[in-house]
Amino acid sequence: MSLSVSKEPRYYLDWAATALPGTQGDSPKAFANPSSKHLEGRHAREKIEEARRRCAKVLGVLPEKLYFCSGGTEANAIILHSFILRPGKGKLLCSRVEHPSIIENISLLNKLGKNTGHIEVEKDGRVTEETLLKALKNNPDTRFISIMAVNNEIGTVPDISSIISIIRQNQEKTGLPIHFHSDMVQALGKVSFDIKSLDLDSASISSHKLGGPQGVGLLYLKNPIETLLSGGEQERGIRPGTENVAGAIALANTLELRARPETVTIEEEKARLRLKYFTEKINALKKPDGKQACKIIPEDRLPIDPRFSPWILQLRFLGVPGAVMVRAMDEMGFAISTGSACSSGNNERPVLKAMGLDEAAGLEGVRISQGWSTETGDFDAFISAAEKVLSSI
Amino acid sequence: MSLSVSKEPRYYLDWAATALPGTQGDSPKAFANPSSKHLEGRHAREKIEEARRRCAKVLGVLPEKLYFCSGGTEANAIILHSFILRPGKGKLLCSRVEHPSIIENISLLNKLGKNTGHIEVEKDGRVTEETLLKALKNNPDTRFISIMAVNNEIGTVPDISSIISIIRQNQEKTGLPIHFHSDMVQALGKVSFDIKSLDLDSASISSHKLGGPQGVGLLYLKNPIETLLSGGEQERGIRPGTENVAGAIALANTLELRARPETVTIEEEKARLRLKYFTEKINALKKPDGKQACKIIPEDRLPIDPRFSPWILQLRFLGVPGAVMVRAMDEMGFAISTGSACSSGNNERPVLKAMGLDEAAGLEGVRISQGWSTETGDFDAFISAAEKVLSSI
Repeated sequence: MSLSVSKEPRYYLDWAATALPGTQGDSPKAFANPSSKHLEGRHAREKIEEARRRCAKVLGVLPEKLYFCSGGTEANAIILHSFILRPGKGKLLCSRVEHPSIIENISLLNKLGKNTGHIEVEKDGRVTEETLLKALKNNPDTRFISIMAVNNEIGTVPDISSIISIIRQNQEKTGLPIHFHSDMVQALGKVSFDIKSLDLDSASISSHKLGGPQGVGLLYLKNPIETLLSGGEQERGIRPGTENVAGAIALANTLELRARPETVTIEEEKARLRLKYFTEKINALKKPDGKQACKIIPEDRLPIDPRFSPWILQLRFLGVPGAVMVRAMDEMGFAISTGSACSSGNNERPVLKAMGLDEAAGLEGVRISQGWSTETGDFDAFISAAEKVLSSI
Repeated sequence: MSLSVSKEPRYYLDWAATALPGTQGDSPKAFANPSSKHLEGRHAREKIEEARRRCAKVLGVLPEKLYFCSGGTEANAIILHSFILRPGKGKLLCSRVEHPSIIENISLLNKLGKNTGHIEVEKDGRVTEETLLKALKNNPDTRFISIMAVNNEIGTVPDISSIISIIRQNQEKTGLPIHFHSDMVQALGKVSFDIKSLDLDSASISSHKLGGPQGVGLLYLKNPIETLLSGGEQERGIRPGTENVAGAIALANTLELRARPETVTIEEEKARLRLKYFTEKINALKKPDGKQACKIIPEDRLPIDPRFSPWILQLRFLGVPGAVMVRAMDEMGFAISTGSACSSGNNERPVLKAMGLDEAAGLEGVRISQGWSTETGDFDAFISAAEKVLSSI
């Protein structure tokens, strides 16, 4: 059996490490187990390290600070679960508007006896200097803070750079190190910011939010930590289990295509103009009775507003439950959602609640999130369809 | 933008849930987030549930007992880490020859204050009625036992069916339920056994060991349990995070191709005959000085031996370190290994030690593992190459 890795004939007798691919039609170029010592294994190892270097180059960080994993949820869990092992009683804080994979793991840690708490947000959904300082004052023993770079439901963009400055200043004052983690799943490749200039301890990145395959992601980690995951030395012990070589390569391709700073700047500006166009139309939308049909959430969000990512807009059709609107618009051909897909199984809207929205208004929330191939014509069609829906209910 | 899911034009405005695939060249048929409520999301949901039903049909179990995850290591971790949450002080046991993802997580649980222990194996590497009964006698408060269905280094096949009978009898006697888990990564699709007839509480399955993609696997779970993973209701809360739809479909394809009972019976028999051929040649292999060159591990393993999987053979070239042999054979074109790829970073051989092999002999261990496309000619070539290597060192 000859493999394309080598010109010489090769005999593969390490099927217990990984089998030859049988159902994918892929060339078996980098199929092997990267932990295997033979030529095929070394080739797979080279491929995954090359993918890591490519990801690192796009992100402007050192390759050894990146760990491949199965996605954003796992990247967040790796960090939070590491506290199950870490001694110390200090407080673990996250903002009130984090993704369920942060919020629920903070609850889990609380259940396991750890001290946890939340950082409040302003009405625009942002952690600000004030809310952060208040949280630090109330929790002088804070040792972990998680604040996402772009909120997945509202598009809120807190000022991560000044947040980190405040945290580091506090740390100097108290002498207690604080691990600062940021969920960057909705930020990377979408809004311009520079991981390498931020003094982050860790960050999570997902492939499928950028058009890459599901089931693969990255954990950025400034310094190695002891993680709960055990069972192999893969990814330097941070994330054991046979590496997903094809996934890592696809993620590198995805980041090169979508997350280069110059690409992000251009696409973000285009998205901003499209969103301005849409927001103005939404604001002008009337119900059949002539009254205002829609409100942006939060109401003071401007058509162009640096506090928000232009890729995500939360709004509400006044008097129409979000779930009804999502269903009606789906029938008209539009794929939209209420909040996070990860919490779409229930009707609660904790992010909107944290922003001070009352429950009734929160249940009207609908999320529109655009992408690289979205056109203003899509928004025109959306407005027409929404008018039809509103006149029929 | 039109998607192939629908004949009507579709407008995708849910990029925050998942982006349209951009770098894979796949048709965007089932690209969406299966938790999304819109047509694309429901389509992805149907695809993953169809994949689950297809896997279930091959395995002869109910679809609702299967949970997609990122692979064998994670499937094992989900079960073991669930004990971090479970109250109770009972003992958690695993055999001495488990995969690192079991052994090291048992150590982790011990570090976290849980009571843990090991079940010894006989010289052939098998947990037997005697060693199991002894462990149960010494640990009357046992509440968890993990014994792998096929050992990944030796190919040992314990009698899982009688092991489970003993465990259930013990359970009836003491009134304490025991969770029985089996790592089936090297068993499924390789040796004939019938998951549905076994009274397992859980089992782990990997895709890439069967020629499917890396980064996807299955957890079989008789009854739902509370797991440590938090952050979304995906896979009914057992394994949160956006599902890997393409991975699930590929795994279903892989199981249908490789793990149908009738296929396994045929392939296992072919593998058995090939291994008999090879074992006889290995036993006859002489060093340049005419002395025996090789010993099978364990020494009493017969050319055809129902105690072992025919896909895996551990042997040692007398006087030659395994790592040296692996390197030399690699240069001759043969991909082989010493032990588990997941522990190939260190020189210890805990599985061989557990079988009573002294350290020096253990370090000579080499693993040959064959697959569906292996031919007896590959083994002829192996023997010739090994002769050359032995005459040169």
